[in-house]
Amino acid sequence: MKSDGGYILVLNGPNLNLLGRRKPEIYGTLSLEDINDGLCACFGDAQLVFEQYNSEGEIIDSLHHAGFDGDCRGIVLNAGAYTHYSYAIADAIEAIEVPVVEVHISNIASRESFRSTSVIAPVCRGSITGFGADSYRLAIDALLNLL
Amino acid sequence: MKSDGGYILVLNGPNLNLLGRRKPEIYGTLSLEDINDGLCACFGDAQLVFEQYNSEGEIIDSLHHAGFDGDCRGIVLNAGAYTHYSYAIADAIEAIEVPVVEVHISNIASRESFRSTSVIAPVCRGSITGFGADSYRLAIDALLNLL
Amino acid sequence: MKSDGGYILVLNGPNLNLLGRRKPEIYGTLSLEDINDGLCACFGDAQLVFEQYNSEGEIIDSLHHAGFDGDCRGIVLNAGAYTHYSYAIADAIEAIEVPVVEVHISNIASRESFRSTSVIAPVCRGSITGFGADSYRLAIDALLNLL
Amino acid sequence: MKSDGGYILVLNGPNLNLLGRRKPEIYGTLSLEDINDGLCACFGDAQLVFEQYNSEGEIIDSLHHAGFDGDCRGIVLNAGAYTHYSYAIADAIEAIEVPVVEVHISNIASRESFRSTSVIAPVCRGSITGFGADSYRLAIDALLNLL
Amino acid sequence: MKSDGGYILVLNGPNLNLLGRRKPEIYGTLSLEDINDGLCACFGDAQLVFEQYNSEGEIIDSLHHAGFDGDCRGIVLNAGAYTHYSYAIADAIEAIEVPVVEVHISNIASRESFRSTSVIAPVCRGSITGFGADSYRLAIDALLNLL
Amino acid sequence: MKSDGGYILVLNGPNLNLLGRRKPEIYGTLSLEDINDGLCACFGDAQLVFEQYNSEGEIIDSLHHAGFDGDCRGIVLNAGAYTHYSYAIADAIEAIEVPVVEVHISNIASRESFRSTSVIAPVCRGSITGFGADSYRLAIDALLNLL
Amino acid sequence: MKSDGGYILVLNGPNLNLLGRRKPEIYGTLSLEDINDGLCACFGDAQLVFEQYNSEGEIIDSLHHAGFDGDCRGIVLNAGAYTHYSYAIADAIEAIEVPVVEVHISNIASRESFRSTSVIAPVCRGSITGFGADSYRLAIDALLNLL
Amino acid sequence: MKSDGGYILVLNGPNLNLLGRRKPEIYGTLSLEDINDGLCACFGDAQLVFEQYNSEGEIIDSLHHAGFDGDCRGIVLNAGAYTHYSYAIADAIEAIEVPVVEVHISNIASRESFRSTSVIAPVCRGSITGFGADSYRLAIDALLNLL
Amino acid sequence: MKSDGGYILVLNGPNLNLLGRRKPEIYGTLSLEDINDGLCACFGDAQLVFEQYNSEGEIIDSLHHAGFDGDCRGIVLNAGAYTHYSYAIADAIEAIEVPVVEVHISNIASRESFRSTSVIAPVCRGSITGFGADSYRLAIDALLNLL
Amino acid sequence: MKSDGGYILVLNGPNLNLLGRRKPEIYGTLSLEDINDGLCACFGDAQLVFEQYNSEGEIIDSLHHAGFDGDCRGIVLNAGAYTHYSYAIADAIEAIEVPVVEVHISNIASRESFRSTSVIAPVCRGSITGFGADSYRLAIDALLNLL
Amino acid sequence: MKSDGGYILVLNGPNLNLLGRRKPEIYGTLSLEDINDGLCACFGDAQLVFEQYNSEGEIIDSLHHAGFDGDCRGIVLNAGAYTHYSYAIADAIEAIEVPVVEVHISNIASRESFRSTSVIAPVCRGSITGFGADSYRLAIDALLNLL
Amino acid sequence: MKSDGGYILVLNGPNLNLLGRRKPEIYGTLSLEDINDGLCACFGDAQLVFEQYNSEGEIIDSLHHAGFDGDCRGIVLNAGAYTHYSYAIADAIEAIEVPVVEVHISNIASRESFRSTSVIAPVCRGSITGFGADSYRLAIDALLNLL
Repeated sequence: MKSDGGYILVLNGPNLNLLGRRKPEIYGTLSLEDINDGLCACFGDAQLVFEQYNSEGEIIDSLHHAGFDGDCRGIVLNAGAYTHYSYAIADAIEAIEVPVVEVHISNIASRESFRSTSVIAPVCRGSITGFGADSYRLAIDALLNLL
Repeated sequence: MKSDGGYILVLNGPNLNLLGRRKPEIYGTLSLEDINDGLCACFGDAQLVFEQYNSEGEIIDSLHHAGFDGDCRGIVLNAGAYTHYSYAIADAIEAIEVPVVEVHISNIASRESFRSTSVIAPVCRGSITGFGADSYRLAIDALLNLL
Repeated sequence: MKSDGGYILVLNGPNLNLLGRRKPEIYGTLSLEDINDGLCACFGDAQLVFEQYNSEGEIIDSLHHAGFDGDCRGIVLNAGAYTHYSYAIADAIEAIEVPVVEVHISNIASRESFRSTSVIAPVCRGSITGFGADSYRLAIDALLNLL
Repeated sequence: MKSDGGYILVLNGPNLNLLGRRKPEIYGTLSLEDINDGLCACFGDAQLVFEQYNSEGEIIDSLHHAGFDGDCRGIVLNAGAYTHYSYAIADAIEAIEVPVVEVHISNIASRESFRSTSVIAPVCRGSITGFGADSYRLAIDALLNLL
Repeated sequence: MKSDGGYILVLNGPNLNLLGRRKPEIYGTLSLEDINDGLCACFGDAQLVFEQYNSEGEIIDSLHHAGFDGDCRGIVLNAGAYTHYSYAIADAIEAIEVPVVEVHISNIASRESFRSTSVIAPVCRGSITGFGADSYRLAIDALLNLL
Repeated sequence: MKSDGGYILVLNGPNLNLLGRRKPEIYGTLSLEDINDGLCACFGDAQLVFEQYNSEGEIIDSLHHAGFDGDCRGIVLNAGAYTHYSYAIADAIEAIEVPVVEVHISNIASRESFRSTSVIAPVCRGSITGFGADSYRLAIDALLNLL
Repeated sequence: MKSDGGYILVLNGPNLNLLGRRKPEIYGTLSLEDINDGLCACFGDAQLVFEQYNSEGEIIDSLHHAGFDGDCRGIVLNAGAYTHYSYAIADAIEAIEVPVVEVHISNIASRESFRSTSVIAPVCRGSITGFGADSYRLAIDALLNLL
Repeated sequence: MKSDGGYILVLNGPNLNLLGRRKPEIYGTLSLEDINDGLCACFGDAQLVFEQYNSEGEIIDSLHHAGFDGDCRGIVLNAGAYTHYSYAIADAIEAIEVPVVEVHISNIASRESFRSTSVIAPVCRGSITGFGADSYRLAIDALLNLL
Repeated sequence: MKSDGGYILVLNGPNLNLLGRRKPEIYGTLSLEDINDGLCACFGDAQLVFEQYNSEGEIIDSLHHAGFDGDCRGIVLNAGAYTHYSYAIADAIEAIEVPVVEVHISNIASRESFRSTSVIAPVCRGSITGFGADSYRLAIDALLNLL
Repeated sequence: MKSDGGYILVLNGPNLNLLGRRKPEIYGTLSLEDINDGLCACFGDAQLVFEQYNSEGEIIDSLHHAGFDGDCRGIVLNAGAYTHYSYAIADAIEAIEVPVVEVHISNIASRESFRSTSVIAPVCRGSITGFGADSYRLAIDALLNLL
Repeated sequence: MKSDGGYILVLNGPNLNLLGRRKPEIYGTLSLEDINDGLCACFGDAQLVFEQYNSEGEIIDSLHHAGFDGDCRGIVLNAGAYTHYSYAIADAIEAIEVPVVEVHISNIASRESFRSTSVIAPVCRGSITGFGADSYRLAIDALLNLL
Repeated sequence: MKSDGGYILVLNGPNLNLLGRRKPEIYGTLSLEDINDGLCACFGDAQLVFEQYNSEGEIIDSLHHAGFDGDCRGIVLNAGAYTHYSYAIADAIEAIEVPVVEVHISNIASRESFRSTSVIAPVCRGSITGFGADSYRLAIDALLNLL
C-alpha cells in the first residue's frame, strides 16, 4: 500500500467516520472518503495511507506502528475529541521520531471551551485548524516541505 | 433481535458488568443480567437490545451503529466513569439523531467530587440518577413517552 | 386535601408560576396548572398536593411541614434557580426523612454554566431532568416505586 | 396609583430602606423617601410607583406583577446585595418582557470583590452605577428614552 | 418583653426550628426551646428576646428592627446555611451599630467544604463555633462583657 | 474648540471608529460621527470635544492632557476592549482629578465572559452600559449633574 | 505547677509574645503577661499553665506533652499565623485526645484574605475569635463546661 | 503596490522585526525580509503587501484599513505576544469581513504556559502554527484556496 | 501459566511496550521484556503473569479477570498516562478485592504538571515511583509482604 | 554509630514519635521504636541511623549534616505533614547529593485533599507510600539497590 | 548624548511622566525630571539616557534600539502598569542581550492584587522595588556592578 | 558586636548556610562567609551583624530581638524558601518598626512557579532580587539611604 519512498499516514480519530453525516454546518458535507479521495488526487506523487479509529488504544497502536516501521515519513493526525484529554496519545506521539502534524476541520477555538485545550499540540510539530477539509491538504504540504 | 417497530438500546459502560459484585451498598445486589431481565419483564411490548462495553471506542461504535441503522428509536446510556471525561462519547451522542437518555444507578452528586461533572449530560435529552436499577426503567419510560 | 394513605407533595420554586408564559422554547407552553392537572389525571390512585413559592423561606417551611406531618410519603421538588445556591433548602431536605426527588423541566446541563451545579442534588434521593413536564410524572413514578 | 399612560416601577431591594442611616460616606445622607420624592419632582409627567422589599421572594413577586399587569412600562431595579447571587431574581427579570434597568448608588466595582459580580446584569437592558441618588434619575431617563 | 436596661436578641436562621429532630449526632438532642430555656435560666439578670426565621428577608427585617429600636444591646446570630452566601444579611449586620456575634452549634470547619466560608463573619464582632448549645451561652457572655 | 466654561471630553477607544460598520445587531447603525452630532444637538450649552484612538498610549496621552489642561470638566470614556485589560489606562484615570464616566454601547455583561470584567471601573466615578448611543448622552448628563 | 484536678494549658504561638507592642489597634494594649494574669484572677479554682513559642516544632512538642501527661484536661490554642498553614500542628491536635479550643484575639475573617483559612479549625473542638483578650476567658469557660 | 485582483496583507506584530536576531533556536535564522522575499518568490501570481508594527494601535489601524479598502482579499496575521491578551486586536478582526489567518513560527503550545492561550484564534478563520517560516506560505495557500 | 499458589499480575499500560525505545534518559534502556525477565529471575518462587495493553478497555478487562478468577494474589499496575485521567480504571481497581500496587518508572512528580495527579492512587493499596525498572521488583516485594 | 561502609539515615518528621498512639486504624499499632527495631533486624549488614524531629529547622539541619558528612549513603525521609508545604525541606533535599527516598505509612492519596500534594516529591529520587511500616523496609531496599 | 564608553538607558513607561502630580503618598513628590537630575548628579562618570513613553509600542521600539545600537550597556526599566500584562515588552527584553533591571518606586506587593504579578520579571536580570526614587539609583549601581 | 551608631542585621534563612556548595549555577560559588566578608569590606563605616538560621522560629526570635533592642537600624532578610509560605515571619516583620529589606540571590521570578509568590514582600520596605551576592550590598546601601 506504500511505495519505496515512504508514505504519509493520515490518521483520523473518534467520530470522524461520520463526516458528512454529523453537524454539516460545522464539519461540512464531505464524507471522510471524499476527503481522502481529494487528497489522493492532490498528492499523486506522494504515498498516502488512511486510517480511522474510534478507540484510543488503536490510535496509539497505529502511531507506534507508523513510528517504527521504517517507511512512514510523517503523520497527519486529527485526534477528534481525544485531542482534549488523551495524554496517552500525546505520549505515543512524543515516543516516536516521525513528525506528527495536528489538524482540525473546524476552528476549535471558537466552539465549546473544552475544545480550546489540546493536550497533543505540545508534542506535535505544528497545528493547522479551521480550514475544513483543506486542513488535511495543508498538513500534508507542510510535512512534505519539512522532509 | 429487534422487531419492525424499532428497538431501544440499553447501553452500559465500564465496570457495569460487575454489578452485584461491586460495592453493593452503592450499586445494589442485582447483576446487570438481573436488571436486564427485569426490564424485559416490564416492557413486554417494547423491543430492548442490551450491550455492555468497557472500551470507550466500542461504546462509540455502538452509538454510531444504533444512530444510523434506522431501527433504533432511543438509547439508554449508563456511561459509567466515562461520564466524567469522555468528550469522544459526547461527540458521538451529539452526532446522532436518536435521542439518548443518561442514567446512573447511584446519586453521583453525593459521591466523590469528580463524579459531579457529566460531560455527556449537555448532549443527552435528559438524565435520571439515583434510583438504583429503577433508573433504567424510568429512562425507557421517558423515551417511550418522547417518541 | 389528602387521603389516609398519605400524599405526595409536588413543590415548585421561584418563577415556575410563570410556566407557559416564560421562554416557551425552553419550558414549553403548558402552565403549571396544566401540568398539575395532567399529573392528577395520571395518578388517580395517589394523593397529590401542589404548592408553589417564590420565597426560599416558604419552600423551607413547606419542606418542614411535609417532613413532619406524618402523612407525606415523598416530595417532588423543582427548586428553580434556588437549585444552584440555596444551601438552606439543601439543609431542609437533609433534615427531613421523607424522600425528595429533584426535577427540572429543561436539561440544565446544556444551558448557562451556573445551572450545571445543583447544591440540592447531593441530599436528594435522585434527580430527573430534561423531559419537560414529563419529568414530574417520572419523579412521582420513581417515588411510588421507592415506597 | 398609576395613570392610563402606564407607570415605571422603582424597585429597591434589601437594606435600601436604611438609606441615610447606613454608611453615609458610601450611600449618602438622603433617605429612600427623599430620593423617591426627588424623582417625583423631576418626572412630573411620568407615573412612578415605588416599592422596597428585603425578601428575595417579594422582589420576584413584584417583578412578576409589574411584568404582567399590562400597565408597567419599565422597571428600575436596585437589587442590593441580591445583585451578586440571586439567580432567582435574574430568572424573573428574564421571564418578563418589560425592560429592567439595573442601578447602584455606589460604584460597586471599587468595593469588596464579591460586589464586582452582578448575576442580574446579563438579563437587564442596561446598568447605571456610581452616581449616588442620581443613578435613579438617569435610569428613568434611560427607560423613557427607550420607550 | 424587654426591660428598661435593654435586651439581647438571640436570632436563629433557617432549619434551626428543627433542632432536636435533625441529625442529632451533629446538632444534639435539645430543641431550640430547650436551648432558649437554658439561656434564660443562666442569664436571669439579662433580658433575652428569641426569634427564629427560615426566610432571609425576615432575618434582615429583624436585624433592622433590633438595630434601630434603641433597646437592643447586642445580637447573637446563628444564620444557619445563610451564613455561607447571604451577602444581604451581611449588609444588614454592617448597617446597624448594635454588635452582632456569630454562633454555630457544630464545628462548621470540619464538615462539607461549603460550610468553611462565612460571608457574615467579616462584619460580626466575633464568632463562636463548635460548642453545641453552649455556643449561645458563650456568645451572650461575650456580648455582656463587651458592653 | 472650547468655551470659557470648560469642556467635556468624549473619548472613544479601539474599533469605535468602525461604529455603524461593525456588528450592527450589537452596536447599532449609527456612525461615531452620527453619535457625536446627536450629542452636540442635545447639549448646546455644554462644550464637547471628541477624540478617538486605537492606540492605548494615545488614550493615556489624551487623558493626561485633559486631566491637566485646566479646562476639562469631565471625561466620558468608552475604552472599547482596553476596558478589560489596560491597567495603564486605569492608572491614568486614577492619576487625574477630572471625573471620568465609563460608558459602553452594548450590555457587556451579556456577551463573552472576558467582557464582564472592567479593570477601569474601580477608578471611574460611575458606569453606564447597555443603552446604545444613548449611553453617551446619559453619561454627559450624569457629569453635568456632578459638577 | 498543676493540681491534682488537672490543668488547662494556654498555649500561644508566634509573635504573641509581642502583644501590647504590636498593632495595638488590632491586638489591644495588654501584654501577654497581663492577659495571663487576668485569666488567673478569673479562674481561681482552675489550674492554668501558660506557654508561648515562636517555633512550630516547640508548639507540637507542647501539644504532645500535654496530650499524654495524663494531667492536662484541655488546651486553649492561639496558633498565630501557623493557624493558616501548619498542617503539622493540625496533625498534633488530631493525634491527642485532650480537647483543643482555637482562639484568636482579632476577627481574622475581616483582615487579609490568607487569614480567613484555618487549617487547624477542623481538628479543634471549637473556635472563638474576635473578642480581644476576652477570647481566652471564653475558651477556658467553654473547656470547663465541656469537661 | 497591489494589483486589480486584490492583495493579501501579511501583517506582523511586536518583535517580529527582530527575526533572525532573536532566539534562533526557536525562531530560526531568517530575517523577516528573508521570509517576505521567499513568499514573493513563491506566490508570483498573487499580490502581497507586507507590514510590521510593534504597536497594538497600529496593528488595529492596519486591520481596519485592509478590511475596508475594498482591495484586500485576505490577511495573514502573526500578532506576536499580542496574541495572548489583545482583545482590541480580536475586536478589530471580528469587525472586518476580510478573512484573517493566524500564524505562528514556533509551536506556541510547547512553550511558556501563557503562550497556549490565543485570544484572537476564536475570531480568525483558521490557525497555522509551528512550521517556522513555512507557516506563512501555508497560510497564504490556505487563504487563496478559501477565495 | 500460574501455579496452585496463585499468581501476581504485572500489568502495563499505554506506550510501555516502547520501553527502551522511548526517551531513554527518562525511562532507561531496558525493554519491557528485559524488565519482565529480570523480575522472573528475581522471584523464582512466585508465579508472575505479564500483560501490556494500549487500550483502556483492555486494561479494565484484565483487572476484572484477575480480580475474579480466584487465583490472582495481587496486581502490579503501571497505567502509563491513563494514571492521570482514567476514572474508569480507578473504578475497576476499586471494584475488585485483589490488592493493586501502582508503579511508575520515572519520578512523575518532577515532570510535566499533569503527571503530578494520579486518579488511581486513592484506590490502590500503595504506590512506588521513581526507581526505574526496580520499581516493579519493589512492588512485587511489597505485595508478597502484604499477603 | 555508623560503620566504614557508610550508613543510611532514617529520618522521621513531625508527630511520627506518636506512632502506635495516634489513629491506629491509619498508622498501625507499632511504635516508631518497633519499626526501627524491625528495620535493624532486617538489614543486619547495613548501618542504619535513626532520627526524628518535630521541628522543620532540625530536619533541615539533619539533612545538611547527612548530606555533607561523607558517610551517609542515602536517606529515607518521612516528612509527615511538612511533606505538603515545606519548600525549605525541599530545598535542603535538592541541595545535597545523597539520594533521598520519600516514604509514607498510609496511602496519602486516599485521605484529606491537602495530603495529595507533596512539595518534596519532585526533588526526591522516588517515593513509596501506603505499605504501613513496610514502606520503610522497601525504601531502604530501594536505596541499597541504587547504590 | 552618550560617550564612547557606552550609556545606560533609563526607560520609564506609562503615567510616569506624571510623577509628582500623581498620588504623592505612594509615588512621592519628585517629578521624573527631578529624579533624572538626581541620577545625573549621582553618576557623573556614567553616561545616562532618559526616555519615557506611554505607548507599549514605543517602549518596544526603544528596547530594540538600545539592544542593538552597540552602545547601550544596560537598561533600567520602570514599565508602569505594563509590568503586569505586556508579554510583548517581555518578549522585547528577552530578545536583546543588553541586561535589563526592573524597578518600581512603590512596593507593588503591598498594593492592589493585580500589581503583585510581573510578567517582565522572569526575563529581567533582577528587580528593585519599593525604595522611591532611590530604586533608580540602586538599579544603575547594580548594572554598573554587573558590567 | 555593634557600635553606638547602631547596627544593620543581615539575616539569612534556611539552606543559605550551604551557599557555595548548592547549585552553583544558580547561587554562585561564594560561601555565605565570603559574602559576609565582602560586605564588611564594603561598608567599613557601618556596623553589620550576621545571623543565619534554618528554623522559622529562630528567624522570628531574631527579628523580635533586633526589632526591640533599640540598636538595630535596619534588617536585610533573605528568608530562603520561607519567603513563599511563612506568614509567621511576615507577622514578625510587620510587628517591628525597624525597616526590613527583602533580598534574593537568584531571580526568583524565573524559577519554579511557587517561588514567584513572596508572602513577606507586602510587609517589607522594598525588595532586591537577582543580583547574586551583590543583592546584599545593594540592600544595605538602600537601608543606609533610608535612614
